[in-house]
Amino acid sequence: MMAHTLAKEKNMDKILRVNMSNLSTSSENVPAEWAGLGGRALTSTIVAKEVIPTCHPLGKNNKLVFAPGMLSGTAAANTGRLSAGAKSPLTGTIKESNVGGTAAQMFARLGIKAMIIEGLPTGDAWYGVHVSKDGVVITEETELIGKGNFAVVEALELRFGKKTGVLSIGTAGEMRMLTSNISVKDTDSKIRSHGRGGLGALMGSKKIKFIAIDDTAAPGITLADPDKFKEAARIFAKALISHPATGEGLPTFGTAEMVNIVNAAGGLPTRNFTYGQFEGRENISGETMRETIIERGGKPKHGCQSGCIIQCSQVYNDKDGNYVTSGLEYETIELMGANACVGNLDDIAAADYVMDDIGVDSIETAVTFGVAMEAGVLPFGDGKEVLRILTDEIGRGTPLGRILGSGAGNVGKIYGITRVPVVKNQGIPAYDPRSIKGIGITYATSTMGADHTAGYAVGTNLMGVGGGIVDPLKKDGQVDLSRHVQIAAIMLDSLGLCLFVGFPAADVPTCVPSLIDMLNARFGLELTPEWIGGLGMTTLKTERAFNIAAGFTNIHDRLPEFFEEPLLPHNAVWDFTGDEIDEFWNF
Amino acid sequence: MMAHTLAKEKNMDKILRVNMSNLSTSSENVPAEWAGLGGRALTSTIVAKEVIPTCHPLGKNNKLVFAPGMLSGTAAANTGRLSAGAKSPLTGTIKESNVGGTAAQMFARLGIKAMIIEGLPTGDAWYGVHVSKDGVVITEETELIGKGNFAVVEALELRFGKKTGVLSIGTAGEMRMLTSNISVKDTDSKIRSHGRGGLGALMGSKKIKFIAIDDTAAPGITLADPDKFKEAARIFAKALISHPATGEGLPTFGTAEMVNIVNAAGGLPTRNFTYGQFEGRENISGETMRETIIERGGKPKHGCQSGCIIQCSQVYNDKDGNYVTSGLEYETIELMGANACVGNLDDIAAADYVMDDIGVDSIETAVTFGVAMEAGVLPFGDGKEVLRILTDEIGRGTPLGRILGSGAGNVGKIYGITRVPVVKNQGIPAYDPRSIKGIGITYATSTMGADHTAGYAVGTNLMGVGGGIVDPLKKDGQVDLSRHVQIAAIMLDSLGLCLFVGFPAADVPTCVPSLIDMLNARFGLELTPEWIGGLGMTTLKTERAFNIAAGFTNIHDRLPEFFEEPLLPHNAVWDFTGDEIDEFWNF
Repeated sequence: MMAHTLAKEKNMDKILRVNMSNLSTSSENVPAEWAGLGGRALTSTIVAKEVIPTCHPLGKNNKLVFAPGMLSGTAAANTGRLSAGAKSPLTGTIKESNVGGTAAQMFARLGIKAMIIEGLPTGDAWYGVHVSKDGVVITEETELIGKGNFAVVEALELRFGKKTGVLSIGTAGEMRMLTSNISVKDTDSKIRSHGRGGLGALMGSKKIKFIAIDDTAAPGITLADPDKFKEAARIFAKALISHPATGEGLPTFGTAEMVNIVNAAGGLPTRNFTYGQFEGRENISGETMRETIIERGGKPKHGCQSGCIIQCSQVYNDKDGNYVTSGLEYETIELMGANACVGNLDDIAAADYVMDDIGVDSIETAVTFGVAMEAGVLPFGDGKEVLRILTDEIGRGTPLGRILGSGAGNVGKIYGITRVPVVKNQGIPAYDPRSIKGIGITYATSTMGADHTAGYAVGTNLMGVGGGIVDPLKKDGQVDLSRHVQIAAIMLDSLGLCLFVGFPAADVPTCVPSLIDMLNARFGLELTPEWIGGLGMTTLKTERAFNIAAGFTNIHDRLPEFFEEPLLPHNAVWDFTGDEIDEFWNF
Repeated sequence: MMAHTLAKEKNMDKILRVNMSNLSTSSENVPAEWAGLGGRALTSTIVAKEVIPTCHPLGKNNKLVFAPGMLSGTAAANTGRLSAGAKSPLTGTIKESNVGGTAAQMFARLGIKAMIIEGLPTGDAWYGVHVSKDGVVITEETELIGKGNFAVVEALELRFGKKTGVLSIGTAGEMRMLTSNISVKDTDSKIRSHGRGGLGALMGSKKIKFIAIDDTAAPGITLADPDKFKEAARIFAKALISHPATGEGLPTFGTAEMVNIVNAAGGLPTRNFTYGQFEGRENISGETMRETIIERGGKPKHGCQSGCIIQCSQVYNDKDGNYVTSGLEYETIELMGANACVGNLDDIAAADYVMDDIGVDSIETAVTFGVAMEAGVLPFGDGKEVLRILTDEIGRGTPLGRILGSGAGNVGKIYGITRVPVVKNQGIPAYDPRSIKGIGITYATSTMGADHTAGYAVGTNLMGVGGGIVDPLKKDGQVDLSRHVQIAAIMLDSLGLCLFVGFPAADVPTCVPSLIDMLNARFGLELTPEWIGGLGMTTLKTERAFNIAAGFTNIHDRLPEFFEEPLLPHNAVWDFTGDEIDEFWNF
């Protein structure tokens, strides 16, 4: 049906291939079965089709696939997300890691539906990849090797022009560390990240330091029905602005608004997931961050992508008004601040900058510090030592840096620690699953390892998103909730939308229809809301099948044993049976 | 049937329990379903029944089970092997690790059929456990904490008498390193090891530094038919002596006789499994070792247990005639000598002593050095640096020591290396599976991770053991061969026999009947050879079921991807399909 429908479409998009084994590039027409896909739906479909599930993630048989969302490149709000897919070096599962920044829209305007990087080069040389309307050029790179991401962005802007898009890895990715990410230049020449799953190690294994993108004279997007698109985009933008989360909470406090909300719910991971509330929360709350930013002349609002009308990002300055970091997210603040007890925004912001520069996932790294503190490697709360270890050890690949750069699960193994908050070897984000059980089901069942963005049940558990009430402390309804939001997340990740579109999509009746209208007006299709749900279910099953073929079973859809310990203030425990969790896959 | 048969037996053996959660001990009668079991059959049955397969191996739900073999404690030759069972901290699978030394016979004479250590203590205190005919005493220990195994043995002999049996962990076990083993005192107050699977970390997690055994005035073994036993034992001993391997090759050259045999077959892992032959093999061969030992006044023959008539162990001295190490095995020599390219017996012997003292598995550790050398941590062949790292880094738990102490699989992850010879995270022993395909099937399918002792197909592949010919370079017959020798290995591991009894058991017609006769004469039973085979199959299936419940699937029964690279001199590749390997379980 898909192939037939899309035959009507005048789709001139291409699939680009970069083969690092022989340093060749090629482009091909989009196969019919991929034509109706974008973002995560496309990367997961390509990975499932072309990557041997049992392959070594850093070997020649893994592939790194980038795909902009289906609506990326258009003028519609918040549609600039890029998906990166592969077999994850960190988890061994299929992986889609989603990012803002400028790359998705540039790829889309260049008519690049997906870019597939395959093979491994022989020899020790490093390479840069340059993408423009004229094609792809691979060049040996020496100058930027060993450099951090900020220096790479700066140098590439000098080399190729200020507007150049950049995907790059820092020193962590060069060293193939499992916490390493892929950085993406944002609208201010700062950094957003394909954070999770160690995809920087994969790019490093392929010896690609950066991908520079030039969309000068790109063909751009052709809309099948420009008027219809414009009207639908207007309704969509209105829906975004009208929701209290995307219209007010996030723009005001950033994602850090969650500090007080999650603390009140008793689910704020503290001291390596020992407590559910943090005494020093006032010092790291979204409210405090906003005041601090305004006081110091930073920006309390900032978009991670052009066309963003939520503006949940920010620019954080030091006491002297100098830039420290941007995009300081709840996850980083909470996991470094409360879970590693570094209850101080300045220390967290400084660490955030270094993590961006060396190119490690701030979630995985912060969870790792919590485990390392439990192991006695450094004291809980020692923000200065965190900064030193990031800079001098992880950034330089000393033995201690290698240990911490390998992620929370490996640190647990290396030090023989049992309180290790990971699922499928990926660190658990900043919501304790005992007190917010819906997100626990997402951690357990996600095809990506522990991941809050894979199905953000927190919205419904704590903030009434979606209208119904699912008590965060009870088991009732959580499996259905997680399945619902996981399928919805695939829609967002496939269309190129940011996660927070999920709030109005659940609550504002005009939102989902406007998305469907935009898709139909973009491609000349007649899709229905049911089609979107079907895309989510199909993609989830495709990802699950890959994982099963890679050796994963229901037994891996479990949380760590230590979550049987009661968590104050509710004495909440993780009490789902395996059979109850496995109901997730009953669709 | 078993329960009925054994009701005839006057079995006064006990199961001892040591609960570290409340520091209590207890003994109980042997349940009917365990009465006919010993060694591995018993440890695996207990672990499968009492350990939650998904538990954290270092958490309170794992148990450490010791069981002497069914014939241990008798006067029959080579029956003094002890099994240690648990969920492995290294592999996450069920584990049985088998050892010589004096403990099995002491346990058996004390009427201890199994000793089950469960729970975890609270607090930081360490403990020693003392076992005698009067029961089990747990005492807080301070003096020996931080000490190596040789110092522990020496101190305990002073404390409890020269004849005291000792199970202990070194500093590696205290630090819960995944390569750590459990040491067992041999007849010369030296060390044998429950080497594989990281069981030292498990004992360390339970905060037990040592178990001292006093069998003074032990009840000893009551034979149902002493005359029949004596006659069968005589026939068995004759079978052992009459086989060329156990009567001549092993006593003359030790297990190191395999260096030249495996090199000739092109399956000698060299330079981290890059080549199948080693230029410097003459310097590390069994022949060279024998000459060196004799020249320096060492012992070319030595038994790891009293009652051994094979004497494949040895005492290796330095140039000045001073003791360096004993029990220098082929695996250690090959993996350190050829695979890590340290082609020098003196360096290997010195490393062997340190590995025994700090308490790490010499197989896992040597494989780990090969991977670390591939990663550039130290140069291939640098024996002095190996010794320094063992002593100053692993022994002291520095960050680099923690990395190497976590085993080959983890080192591969930490440094982003793809040539990592492990199956189920356990290092592959000293036979390249491309050129000796039968052992490759054992590595892949063993319930224990890569393990040559789980089914030593090398005997048939290279030395014609068992009469039939199974070409080591061809796939034909290897799956059946591996299944046969894996089932046979369980017989050996359950009766308390050393692995090398497998040679006469396969080739000397009187051998297996003599074993059955001994069992019947020991217990007053009427067992048949078929019963033994049944025991092996049942145990293997029990172990497999545990692993499946722990999350393992057929997909984990695979060798690493890099074995698709051709191996000189035969250009051999690992070419079994998954379906072909999975035929293993068709019984």
